[in-house]
Parts: sequence; C-alpha cells; structure tokens
Amino acid sequence: LKFAVLPGDGIGPEVMEVALDVLKNAGEKFGFALDYEHADIGGIAIDNHGVAFPDSTKTVCENSEAILFGSVGGPKWESLPPKEQPERAALLPIRKAFSLYANVRPGLLYPQLTDASPLKKERIPNGIDIVCIRELTGGIYFGQPKSTTTLENGEEQAIDTMVYKTSEIERIAQVAIDTAKARGGSVCSVDKANVLETSVLWRKVVTEYFAKHAPEIKLSHMYVDNAAMQLARDPNQFDVLFTENMFGDILSDEMGVICGSLGMLASASLGAEQNSLGFPFGLYEPSGGTAPDIAGQGIANPCAQILSAALMLRYSFGENEAAAAIEAAVEKAVTGGIRTGDIAFGLESVGTKEMGAAVLKNL
Amino acid sequence: LKFAVLPGDGIGPEVMEVALDVLKNAGEKFGFALDYEHADIGGIAIDNHGVAFPDSTKTVCENSEAILFGSVGGPKWESLPPKEQPERAALLPIRKAFSLYANVRPGLLYPQLTDASPLKKERIPNGIDIVCIRELTGGIYFGQPKSTTTLENGEEQAIDTMVYKTSEIERIAQVAIDTAKARGGSVCSVDKANVLETSVLWRKVVTEYFAKHAPEIKLSHMYVDNAAMQLARDPNQFDVLFTENMFGDILSDEMGVICGSLGMLASASLGAEQNSLGFPFGLYEPSGGTAPDIAGQGIANPCAQILSAALMLRYSFGENEAAAAIEAAVEKAVTGGIRTGDIAFGLESVGTKEMGAAVLKNL
Ligand SMILES: CC(C)[C@H](C(=O)O)[C@@H](O)C(=O)O
Ligand SMILES: CC(C)[C@H](C(=O)O)[C@@H](O)C(=O)O
Repeated sequence: LKFAVLPGDGIGPEVMEVALDVLKNAGEKFGFALDYEHADIGGIAIDNHGVAFPDSTKTVCENSEAILFGSVGGPKWESLPPKEQPERAALLPIRKAFSLYANVRPGLLYPQLTDASPLKKERIPNGIDIVCIRELTGGIYFGQPKSTTTLENGEEQAIDTMVYKTSEIERIAQVAIDTAKARGGSVCSVDKANVLETSVLWRKVVTEYFAKHAPEIKLSHMYVDNAAMQLARDPNQFDVLFTENMFGDILSDEMGVICGSLGMLASASLGAEQNSLGFPFGLYEPSGGTAPDIAGQGIANPCAQILSAALMLRYSFGENEAAAAIEAAVEKAVTGGIRTGDIAFGLESVGTKEMGAAVLKNL
Repeated sequence: LKFAVLPGDGIGPEVMEVALDVLKNAGEKFGFALDYEHADIGGIAIDNHGVAFPDSTKTVCENSEAILFGSVGGPKWESLPPKEQPERAALLPIRKAFSLYANVRPGLLYPQLTDASPLKKERIPNGIDIVCIRELTGGIYFGQPKSTTTLENGEEQAIDTMVYKTSEIERIAQVAIDTAKARGGSVCSVDKANVLETSVLWRKVVTEYFAKHAPEIKLSHMYVDNAAMQLARDPNQFDVLFTENMFGDILSDEMGVICGSLGMLASASLGAEQNSLGFPFGLYEPSGGTAPDIAGQGIANPCAQILSAALMLRYSFGENEAAAAIEAAVEKAVTGGIRTGDIAFGLESVGTKEMGAAVLKNL
C-alpha cells in the first residue's frame, strides 16, 4: 500500500509513529505490505521550505494512493497572519490540489467514555454514534469574488462569495447516501434555505437526488441554527449529519467536542479522483490539533491517528477487514481500561507507546 | 411609553399578556404609563392579511418607540417554502425596515437551574452568565448578488454574497464595547479570518476600533469553529461573545440551548435610528419559538417574554431601574421555586398566569 506520510507538527510525529506500527502489524495479519514516504507539511514545512505545502510534498502525495496526515500548527507560527498559519496554509491548498470534496467525520463516543463528554450522562446513556459528512471544496471557502476594496467614501468593503452548483451537491449527496447505507441509517441535511440561495439549491438537489438514487434512505432537512442546538441537546437524534463546507466546519467541531476527547476522533477527506487501485484518493487525519502543551512528552493519545489509518485502509485501499479489526482493537483497548491522560478519568494513564501496544495486543 | 405589541403565533399571545401585566405593574411602581397598540405578525398576519409583515403592522411600528414581539410560526405554515415561512418572512423585512443591526442575547442560567442545561453540572457550577452580540443586518443575509442561474451545461448554480464594510463593523463593535463596559467584562470577537475576506476586515476594524475607543476593554479573537467547541465545553470562558450575522445565528442558538430552557432567554434587536426619546428604536423578543405543542394550554413559560419587556425598558426607554427590578423579580420567583413545566425538574409546576403572578409578587 503506497501512501504519503505527513506527520506535521506538535504531537503529529509521535502519534504517527504508533499508527504506522499498527498498520505494519495489520499488514502482517491481513496480507499487505506498506510502502510509504514521509514529507513535511505545516509549520515544519514553513521552517524547512518556506511554505506550508511545498511542491516536494505535493509530488510525494501525487505518487501515492492516499495521504496519512498528522496535524499542523503551533505557538511558533501563531503570530503569522491568519491566512498564513500552518493549518490554513497547508489544508486549503491540499484540499484544492486533490479535489478532496468529501469530509467524513465519525462522531463516536464509547458508552464507557461518557465522562469525557461535556454533556450530562443521561443525555447520552449509550455514548454517541453519528457521522458528519461535510462538503469540503465548495461554498464560501473558494467562491469568487473574494476581495477587499476601498469605497468612494474611503471605507473598506470586503466580499466573500458562497457558490454551489448542481453537480457539486450531487456528488457529496452520493457520499451521504453511501455512508447511510453502510450504517443502515438515515440522513439529516443541514442548510439555511430560509435565507440562502445556495441552501435553496442544496435542499432541492439533495431532495431530488435522494428520491432518484436512494428513495429507501430516510432524508430530513434542518436549519443550521437549529442543528447547532439539537447537536448539544440530543446528538443521537442524528445518524448521518450532512452539510455544506462552512456549516460543516462549525457543526463538525461542535460534534467533536460533544463526543468528548478529540484524541479519539478520526476523519477522512475523500477526493474526486480514483487512485490506481480504483478507490478514492483521500487524506486521513485526526480531528484534534497539535496539542503543543503536551507535544514531545510521549503522552498524547494516538487513537485518533490509528483510527484515521483505519479509515485510509477502508476508503483508499478497500481493506475493510483490516480497518474493522483496527477499529475493534482500539475499542477493546480503551474500553478495557487502557487510557491516555485525556480519557483516563481516574484510571491510571499510560503513554502514547503503551496505548499503541495495547491496541496491537487486541488486534 | 408608546410601543407596538406583536404577539404573533403559538404561545406568543399567552406569554405576551402576562408580560404586559408585569409592565403595567412596573409602570405603577416606577411612574410611567403604557401606551401600546397590537398588530398582527407572522402566521396570523399571513392568514389575516396575506403577508407575514403587513403594511398596517409596519405603520403601527413606525408610530412607536419600540416593538415588543412574541414569536411566529407553527405547523400550519410549515408547508410553505422556506423563504415564505412566518419566521423568516416576518423577521428579515422588519430587521431591514428598522435597521435593527444589533442583536443582544443574554445567555443567563441561574445556578439553581443547572439541571436545565444539557451540560454536566461540574462544567457550570455557578450557572452561565454571558452575552452574545450578533450583527443583524449585514453579511450573507442581505448581500448582493444573491441569485440562481442556469449554466451553459444545464446545471444550476446558486450564489450568496457575504459583505461587510468598515462602518457596519464599527457600529456593532460599539455595541460590544457598551455591553462589556456595563458588565465590567471582556469581549471575544468570533470570525473566520483564516478563510474569509470579510473576517479579515472584521478582525482588523474591530481591533482598531477597540484600540481607539476602548483600550481598557480586553479583546480577544477566536475562529468560529473553535467558538462552537468552546461554547459547549466551557461557556463561561466567554463574557461578551461578539460576531457577525451568520455565525451569530448559529452560535447564539447553541448558547441558548446550553443555557437550558429557551423559555428563560430574552433578546433585544437594536436599531440604527433613535426613537423620539433619544434612545435606540428596538425590537424585543424571546429567544424561543412558538412551542405549538403547548400553545393554548396556559402552561408556557412567560419569563423570556417578561425579560424581553425588561430589555425594552432598559434600551428603548431608559427605564433602567424598572428593568433591573423586573429581572430581579423573575430571578427571585424562579429561584424561589415557582416553575413552569419546562424548568420544574421535580418541583410542582405552575401555569403561565401563576408564573406571572409570582413575578409580580416579587416586583
Ligand atoms: C484550518 C481551516 C482552514 C480548516 C477549515 O476551516 O476547513 C479547519 O478548521 C478544518 O476544519 O479542517
Ligand atoms: C428566521 C431566521 C431568518 C432568523 C435568522 O436566521 O436570523 C432566525 O433564525 C433568528 O435567529 O432570528
């Protein structure tokens, strides 16, 4: 399996090492070999190459079937202007370069970990199990015009443009359908159709596409402000939460925090192009950040990175069994009581490597 | 005090009646007389006049110093297209007509009511006390172009435009400053300056305006996705949460649900124009909806409507003492154990009128 390894900054390299160990072990069990190449991304790339997403890194990615991504950013680069900060300067160009239009974020909280959630236990007695599908290359992120001008009276005026067209909405609707089918679940499409033209189109195209291609999947619609409420009130009323780029940025992070530890949450960003194996090219990364406060101490939770590697096996390599086995091993290790500090809650906490070893033991 | 009374639909009329009683009583105590006129808004206006915000209602508002608003919408009108639904069709035109650019929403949860919040008690041991300031007439709500076209290949493409100019940002920054000063608090300005041009301008103008006009107020900045996380994780890290229209729509509703019962939350939407008394013209409404499931039963919580009336006294009539007295009376009644069903939590629950009577008793 040929993939690019972009560990990035902060805890990225530490948790990546453990994830690669788990992948190697899974390869031995399930009969595949790893063929990966490291490259710089984010802050370290700014330091070494002057840009967050260097051409050399792009080439490594282009020569791969998928990207396993760590996390980027940190205090060292925080004084850069917002648009030059590592996360933004790495992620937006890489999404654009590989047309990574479909962000898939499982919102999973094991029942044994409800202590980690800010929500009352009685709201989530069985943990949380939802998935957020976010459109990732359209909407207000890339729409033109996007500019600032000086008006005649001397004031400045800035403009951003939110744009969606039918085909963009249809291809992400298909991802929502596939996800719901795989879970035997339903889809709630989130928009602001009472205010936005793009949302009126979104709702219409989604409704028609589901009616035509997946009439058996239950589809509902919700306004984004209400969705932000409902997520915090009763997250499990959702199954597949499906939305456009900007709303997905906000709601998927709200979902993440409600699921307790970001150290447990993986994500996949699927591309429009197939890789040479006939699967979608994709980028796989933990939902959390670089956790600069604990970087280098060997105590970061590697589970999100391990679970991201599992998503890579499933989506970009079709290794479904290995993916499921890794996911089960993480669940067994964690629910069995092996915990890094972020999810220990009174239990003795272990380091990054020990957490990885516990996953390996359960694989 | 001359104001327009727009009770609207669902529980609107029931809770409005109680709020007017409280206002009358406060007038007797604090030496002002009420002079109000009722008019139709929302669903009932669609039924009676064919439109959600009729010209006759507009005239009543124009002849007033402020608007006391109930709530609008309900199942009867749910089959209308999103843009014709009562809430949208009433609120957007009325905001535009009276330049209601500043939405002020206290996020208040009494320590005695933490059971009402979905958050664990240990996250909010002293309840919640924050304020959300949302820009209400700019951004992507009204920006042009806002249209749908058919592309050459037959696809449809929709566009919304987010626009902000310096003066729009400065006037709402002043409201954030005034609010922080009145509370002795700090301001967190929320944007997406790593992606949006409007947010880059927002952050720049806010920073400069605070430096010039209120250097003593602590100002911080946060990205909107992070703010959605932080609100659910630890709401009291905020004091004044300050943001643009679309982000404010989402975050203020998330804040609302985290504060437990929407039946307790008031809001003010302040206009650019002064009324004949030299105070801002404004619209005052509960944050919750029409609660069609309990409408007509006399069990709705009138506190949000009463507290909205208090905000009207403060902002549009300068009756600060009366406003504070009403707020204190509501707090005393509720923390003293008089509760409607939405906030009863095992206590015996009372009806709308009894709740109002308890507030009057404490006034
Ligand atoms: C860094 C930023 C541009 C990015 C986004 O807004 O998409 C991030 O918040 C994310 O969600 O991956
Ligand atoms: C009804 C709708 C247009 C409105 C908004 O989005 O502003 C509502 O959600 C609100 O927050 O008052």
